[in-house]
Formats: sequence, C-alpha cells, structure tokens
Amino acid sequence: MDNSKIGHHISEQFNKELEDIRNKVLNMGGLVERQLELAVSAFMTSNIEIAELVIKQDNQIDAMEMDIDLECTQILALRQPAAFDLRLIITVVRIISELEIIGDLSERIAKMAIRVSDVEGKVDQYYELQHMADLVKEMLHGALDSFARMNIEEVASIIVRDENVDREYDSILRQLITHMMEDPRNITRTLNVLWTVRAMERIGDHACYICTHLIYMVKGEDVRHLSQTELEKKVKDQLLT
Amino acid sequence: MDNSKIGHHISEQFNKELEDIRNKVLNMGGLVERQLELAVSAFMTSNIEIAELVIKQDNQIDAMEMDIDLECTQILALRQPAAFDLRLIITVVRIISELEIIGDLSERIAKMAIRVSDVEGKVDQYYELQHMADLVKEMLHGALDSFARMNIEEVASIIVRDENVDREYDSILRQLITHMMEDPRNITRTLNVLWTVRAMERIGDHACYICTHLIYMVKGEDVRHLSQTELEKKVKDQLLT
Repeated sequence: MDNSKIGHHISEQFNKELEDIRNKVLNMGGLVERQLELAVSAFMTSNIEIAELVIKQDNQIDAMEMDIDLECTQILALRQPAAFDLRLIITVVRIISELEIIGDLSERIAKMAIRVSDVEGKVDQYYELQHMADLVKEMLHGALDSFARMNIEEVASIIVRDENVDREYDSILRQLITHMMEDPRNITRTLNVLWTVRAMERIGDHACYICTHLIYMVKGEDVRHLSQTELEKKVKDQLLT
Repeated sequence: MDNSKIGHHISEQFNKELEDIRNKVLNMGGLVERQLELAVSAFMTSNIEIAELVIKQDNQIDAMEMDIDLECTQILALRQPAAFDLRLIITVVRIISELEIIGDLSERIAKMAIRVSDVEGKVDQYYELQHMADLVKEMLHGALDSFARMNIEEVASIIVRDENVDREYDSILRQLITHMMEDPRNITRTLNVLWTVRAMERIGDHACYICTHLIYMVKGEDVRHLSQTELEKKVKDQLLT
C-alpha cells in the first residue's frame, strides 16, 4: 500500500483534493513536531523566549485542524467517498485531532518551562527527561512518516516503543517523589517537572493512537481498544502487514 | 431545533438508523455517567469492590464506542448524508470519543481509589473533592441532556460552569501542595489524590467539548478553538441560540 492509492480516481479533481489533504496533514504534523522540539528545548535550557514562541504558535495548529476538518466534511458531503477513500477521510479527521492534542501538550510543556525558569539550578532528572523526550519525538516522527508513505510496516515498532516511554515515566516519577521528600521546598517546582513528564508520556500515547488510526485506514480494522499485548501479538502475527 | 429533525427523511429505514444511533449514544452516555458516579463514590468511601467494578466495566464503553463508530461509517458509506444529517453523524463520532475518554478518566479515578484505600484516614480535601465531582457530573449530565433534546439552549450555562471547576481545581491543588509540604510522608498518597482531581478537571473539559460539538451540529459553526471568553460572548450575544 502506498500513496498511489490516492491517484486512482477517474475524477482528476478528486485526486487533487485528496492529495491536498494529505499534504496539509503533513504540514500540520511538521509544525507539531517543531513545536514539540522547541517546547522541550525551552524546558531544558530555561529559554523563556522560545517557550513564548511555542505558546504563540499553538493557534496556528488549531487553525490548521479546523481548515483540514472543514475540507474533509466538504469531501464527505460532495464526493460521498467509499471504501479506502472514506477510511482515509475518517483517519485524517482522527489524526489531526491527535496532532492538535499533541500541540496542546507541547504548549503545556512550554508553560512549565516558563514556570520552572525563574528558579536557579537544574532539576536532577534532566538527562532522563531528554531521553524520554527523544523517544516520544521519534515515535511521533515515525507515525507521521508512516502516514506520509501510507504504509503500516513501521507502526508495530512504534507502538512497542511506548513501553519504554512508560518505563522511563515511572522511573522519573519515582525520582521526583524522592526529590520532594528530601526537601519539601522543592515540591512546587518538582510538580511542574512532573506535569512536563506527564505531558511527554501522553504525547507518546497519542503517537500510538495515530498508529492505530493508520491500521484502520490500511486494513479497515478497528484496533484502538486492544491491549498493548494483543496489539503486539496481532502485529507480530503478520495479520496487519 | 429538536429531535424531530431526525424523522424527516423519505426513507423510513434511514430515520430508524439515525434514531438507533441517537439511542445508542444516550445509552453509552448513561453508562459513562454511572461509571463516573461509581468511581467518585469508590474514591470517597475507599470501596475497592466498586472501584474494581468500574475498571471491569470500562471495556463495555470501548465496545459501545466501536459499535457506534462502525454504524456511523456505514451510514456515511451507504446513505451519503448531507447538511444536518452529515453534521449529526460527525458530531456523534466526536461525542462518543469524548465519552470514551471520560470513561478512561473514571477508570483512572477508580484505580486511584484502590491505591489510596490501603492507607488509613481520609484526605482533608474530601469535601472540596465531592463538590468538584458534583460540578463535573452536572456538566456531563447537562451536555448529554442537550444531545438527547438536540437543543443547545443549555450549553452556554454548562460551558460557563467549567470556570468554577477550574477554580476548585486550583484551590484543591494549593491545599494538596501545603499538605505535602507539612509532612513529606504524605507525598505519595497526596499525589494519588492529585491525579484524581486532575482527572475530574479533565472530565469537565471533555463535557465542554461535547457542548462545542453540539453547537457545530445545530449551527454548523466550529467553535472548538474559541477562548472561554470568546465563546461566552458568542453565546451571550445570542448568535448561537
């Protein structure tokens, strides 16, 4: 399955519309990836200017979501798509909703960057935080890449990686609790770090949701509510690829 | 605007399908309301059995979401709805996704109820917690009621109430931080209370999202990304009613 799927319509205009939507989703995805990158960087370097830029740019993501959503609704009304085309449109609506949430979570990280920046010194967990951030960025990038290629060969490895994210999250959480216990004056600041780590963990989840939407698009199978284990088994059994 | 909107089709079968979807959404909404009620009650009374019931029942909600989703996709493919019918189907898909998330958040509250139950004594903030829980339950009920009547007269008052929820949340959060500072041995337990309060706050947000989806259904206007203030102004200016 590749994006030549899009170019098979008798109507040249419909081909163009689907190609246009695909490009818009990829643009939106690119912006969301940059926002996440900037938010994490603002947090790590206590850079308020970058954090404020992320917050300011979030409404661009919202506008993109509304624009693509409207275009999808118009296609549903006017083109009355069926089979793969219908699943493509439904998948796009779902993916842009995940991207919008990832954008909001990046904005949240940027807000925490500002709150944390006014206190001197770094939090001990920055190394682990950077590692976790790199993991979720890779997951998001992989999910968007799979959408670009309309191919689900890589989604299994992305979904599996979420386990590492959850492990990192638990480990950082334990460290943060210890940190708070050692010195209760750290509590307010550490809670802001905790919200940041939680936001990253949720971004990993939403990258996985994008993958399950892609499985629906390609295979027509709704795998959203399978457990991680069931999903992995399904993917490994080659039922999906 | 009322649900007679549904019964205007020449095809008797299509009328039935839309009515069927409406009833299924209301059933799903009813179950989600009960799950939230039970989860809060389990938390307040440290009742592990009720908490376990909530966790066990969550997959019913997931199954309902998938079932309704499939029915909506079939209607899109076979009936090719337009205008209000199309917005109704799109709105249903969005509402059941919000309901599924509220179900997950209720499950999260139930899990926290179990974690907190093994420690003796109650958390000081139970009175405020109960009040906040009542507020979000009312919001969810109001949103589902508006969907049942296909009427957006009440949505403004629901959206406005989310400000109270946010205020309660901030107030409880401050108390919890004080509690942790006073005795660091409370930190782990208090964090579990904090996750619960956070889940309730998010349920309030998702009840508001249901309201904005209803505005889209009735008015065809995408108001998701308006700020609280803009949305209230719009509602007060009678643009929406």
